[in-house]
Amino acid sequence: MSSNVFVHPQAIVESTTLGVGTRVWAFAHVCKEATLGANCNVGEGCYIEGGSRIGDRVTIKNGAMIWEGVTIADDVFVGPGVVFTNDLRPRSPRFAAVVERYASKGWLGHTQVGRGASIGANTTISCGVSIGEFAMVGAGAMITADVPAYALTFGNPARVRGYVCMCGTKLPSFRNGSTRCVACSLRYRKTAKGVVTGE
Amino acid sequence: MSSNVFVHPQAIVESTTLGVGTRVWAFAHVCKEATLGANCNVGEGCYIEGGSRIGDRVTIKNGAMIWEGVTIADDVFVGPGVVFTNDLRPRSPRFAAVVERYASKGWLGHTQVGRGASIGANTTISCGVSIGEFAMVGAGAMITADVPAYALTFGNPARVRGYVCMCGTKLPSFRNGSTRCVACSLRYRKTAKGVVTGE
Amino acid sequence: MSSNVFVHPQAIVESTTLGVGTRVWAFAHVCKEATLGANCNVGEGCYIEGGSRIGDRVTIKNGAMIWEGVTIADDVFVGPGVVFTNDLRPRSPRFAAVVERYASKGWLGHTQVGRGASIGANTTISCGVSIGEFAMVGAGAMITADVPAYALTFGNPARVRGYVCMCGTKLPSFRNGSTRCVACSLRYRKTAKGVVTGE
Repeated sequence: MSSNVFVHPQAIVESTTLGVGTRVWAFAHVCKEATLGANCNVGEGCYIEGGSRIGDRVTIKNGAMIWEGVTIADDVFVGPGVVFTNDLRPRSPRFAAVVERYASKGWLGHTQVGRGASIGANTTISCGVSIGEFAMVGAGAMITADVPAYALTFGNPARVRGYVCMCGTKLPSFRNGSTRCVACSLRYRKTAKGVVTGE
Repeated sequence: MSSNVFVHPQAIVESTTLGVGTRVWAFAHVCKEATLGANCNVGEGCYIEGGSRIGDRVTIKNGAMIWEGVTIADDVFVGPGVVFTNDLRPRSPRFAAVVERYASKGWLGHTQVGRGASIGANTTISCGVSIGEFAMVGAGAMITADVPAYALTFGNPARVRGYVCMCGTKLPSFRNGSTRCVACSLRYRKTAKGVVTGE
Repeated sequence: MSSNVFVHPQAIVESTTLGVGTRVWAFAHVCKEATLGANCNVGEGCYIEGGSRIGDRVTIKNGAMIWEGVTIADDVFVGPGVVFTNDLRPRSPRFAAVVERYASKGWLGHTQVGRGASIGANTTISCGVSIGEFAMVGAGAMITADVPAYALTFGNPARVRGYVCMCGTKLPSFRNGSTRCVACSLRYRKTAKGVVTGE
């Protein structure tokens, strides 16, 4: 582990793959075999399980829980109290009738969060979904389906309600398939592959 | 307390009634007069208040909060960030106008979770409800009413959306009052008392 | 800080402005420049950020997160797992394209909670809203708009569903603009300024 990693004395860090400049605050736990990039911030009381993979410059606010099977790209914002999941039909693994199910990793669901996306406070994320790059998930949402890139989504279950710019500003409606951010002037187009940015 | 109980050095365990093989992880607190059975797992940051009663082989994921008045049967799964409650109309007990209300336990609501049930991540549970055995509460749900045995329920407020097998698999629709799990072949019947299993 | 403040040995209290009789429990953190009044109770695992201001006799249940920009009046109940927010369009401040946005405090939203209000368990609160005095927010709610005084509100998004008395009891429907609490006999009137109490 880099000598430039900050670990609060009341945090538990067992992983040895934390990038330069990453900070882990009190009562947080980064487990063995969790991977964190450079310049991340892991808030108080977060739990980062072994088998999760987190990129660079990711902000993880207090109390967020990230499990095995979750992959988070660079520049993502994970709000306070966000709960990921990795089992669509959980039972107590100690229950005799399901011991076989939990003997291998067939139950494990995988979740992807794309570059620069934001996940609002206290959101819950069903496993098996993919959150597109620069998507913005509103606070208190329940994510049960894939979220397209740049989409603004919220509610329980969450639905797409519009689109946001990379900078976070809500985009005006698309006209003839294109729009432009009022804050930073970046252009966006709707294509067969979804919303993209560029001229 | 059994000598076979594991308590993480950063956990707080004041209860003396934890069964054999039960483990309590960091930053969790099992209060005096909370009862936990054997072979339970209490995840990081959980709070188990005095006056709650928890059976055997219960899996309680990180950050769950279980209060006085909550009774959890054997083999239950309590997902990460699940919040029980025990007061339907809470006020700050320090507020002068409600001191009388909080002088006795008349405000205390009771909640039951039946054997083998699963409560999904970040679910909130109003007090006074009963969750039936082997019911499955989806992630992010708000439980405001009783949940029948074997029911699959989710949303805010949560509604019954189908039924699940003891093994966790969603059951096909009932035909002539019966159905069978495609994964484990267990049969179920709809009766006047709700869904039951057996020939 | 008053000598009559209780700080659990596993709590972190950096603020010096906690009033007489206030207690802070394990794994909670009251940051420098957070202000807490007298006779408050800060449950386990709470996070009270610098720049938040909290009145007297406030009950803050376990795991609640209160950020800069949040002001809470006297006698408020903040339920377990309640998450406030202070940024309507969060991005990771470490992401190069938004560094300018986070260089000043223009992103910071403010939230007010009025005297005697109750916020139910696991509720999420969008920033920029005002919760009226003695309002009652049901458990699991997503607050996205102002809540009137004495209003009972719940759901995602939360909607006003009725009114409650100062004592916590649900009020009967208003007739000719007035009603009376069946529990404590307090009278209420609907006025142009909202619901008020008094003769």
